[in-house]
Amino acid sequence: MSEIKFIDKLSKHFEKLPGVGKKTAERYAYHIAEKMTIDEVEAFAKELVTTKKDVKHCKVCGMLTDQETCPICASSYRTKDQIMVVRDTKDVIAIEKTNQYNGLYHVLGGLISPLDGISPDDLNIDSLEKRLDGIKEVIIATSFTPNGETTALYLEKIIKKDGLVVSRIGYGLPAGGDIEYVDELTLRRAIDARKINN
Amino acid sequence: MSEIKFIDKLSKHFEKLPGVGKKTAERYAYHIAEKMTIDEVEAFAKELVTTKKDVKHCKVCGMLTDQETCPICASSYRTKDQIMVVRDTKDVIAIEKTNQYNGLYHVLGGLISPLDGISPDDLNIDSLEKRLDGIKEVIIATSFTPNGETTALYLEKIIKKDGLVVSRIGYGLPAGGDIEYVDELTLRRAIDARKINN
Repeated sequence: MSEIKFIDKLSKHFEKLPGVGKKTAERYAYHIAEKMTIDEVEAFAKELVTTKKDVKHCKVCGMLTDQETCPICASSYRTKDQIMVVRDTKDVIAIEKTNQYNGLYHVLGGLISPLDGISPDDLNIDSLEKRLDGIKEVIIATSFTPNGETTALYLEKIIKKDGLVVSRIGYGLPAGGDIEYVDELTLRRAIDARKINN
Repeated sequence: MSEIKFIDKLSKHFEKLPGVGKKTAERYAYHIAEKMTIDEVEAFAKELVTTKKDVKHCKVCGMLTDQETCPICASSYRTKDQIMVVRDTKDVIAIEKTNQYNGLYHVLGGLISPLDGISPDDLNIDSLEKRLDGIKEVIIATSFTPNGETTALYLEKIIKKDGLVVSRIGYGLPAGGDIEYVDELTLRRAIDARKINN
C-alpha cells in the first residue's frame, strides 16, 4: 500500500540478507525509520559500502581480507608447514578463536556439491595444490555433512604424496553441524584428536 | 581478532537492529562482504539514508510518512468522523491490510508504561484531543497487554464527552499479542465486534 512505500523499498534490501523474511525485514526498516538517528543510519550506510569496497580474497589462502595478503599468511609467527583446509572465512575465525592452531589456512570458498552443481573446478583447489611444496601436513577441516565428506575425500585423493601427512579434523565435531556454530571446547578437541590418514 | 576487523565494524551496526545478536550480525556482515555485489550494497546503503532523511510523522495523525500529511489523512475517500487510536505505524499497516476500516487513525507513538517511565505526556495524546471536533466515534485499538489496557482506560477517561462514541477494538484479539503480528481474519473480527463503552 502506498502509505508505506518507503518501508517496502527498504525492506526489499533487508530481505536479501540470509534468513530474513518479509516480516523481519519490515521490522528492521521501521527501526531504521523510527528509532535510529540520521547519524547512526549514515554511519551504517557508509560502513556497508566501505566494507564491500575494501574486501577481497587473500591471494595466497583465499580468505576474506582488506589487504592483498591476509594477516595470517603474512604473519611471521605462524607455523608455515601446516595448512588447514576450510570451507570459508567464517570457519577460519571459528578455528582462530580456539587458540589451538598456529599453522596456515586454505579457504575453499564452498564445498563440492553435485546436487547444486558445484564441482572442484568451482572451488579454490588449484591454488592449494600449488602451495604444497615444503608443507608437512594438510589438515582437512570440512564439516561432517555429505558435501563436507565428499570434499574431504576428493582432497585426500588429489593432494596425497610422499612425505605429506594428510589428516582430518575429527573427534567431537557433531554430525550435520556447521563449523562456525560449534563451541570452542568441541573445536579444540576436534583439532587435538585429528586422525592421520596415511 | 585483527583478521576480521572490517566484519566486526560492520556487525556493530547490524547489532543495533531489533532482535539481532552478535552471531546474526556477523552472518549479515559476511553476506554483504562475500555474496552481494557492490551495486546491491550501494543501492542498499543509499536507500537506508534516503528512507531516514525522508521519513517524518504526519502532522495530523502522527504516523510515519514521507509527506507533510500522510496519504490516509489527505485522502478524500476516508470516513472523516471516525478515528482509530493505535500504538504505532505498524499497527496502522496491519489494520489497513484487513480492508475492514475506512476511517482515520491516530498514532500514539507508544503506550503508557509506568515501569518504563512512559507517561501520557510522552505520547501523541494532546493532538488527539484537539482532533475531536466533528468526530462521531473513537475506536481505541491498543493491544490486550497491561500497557495497552492502561492506555485504553486513560484515553477513555479523557476523551469522554457527549455525542462521542468511544469504542474498544475487541473480539478475537489474543491476550499478550502485538497487533502487528495478528492474522488478518482475527483483526477483521476484532474490528467488527468492537464494544461500545458509553
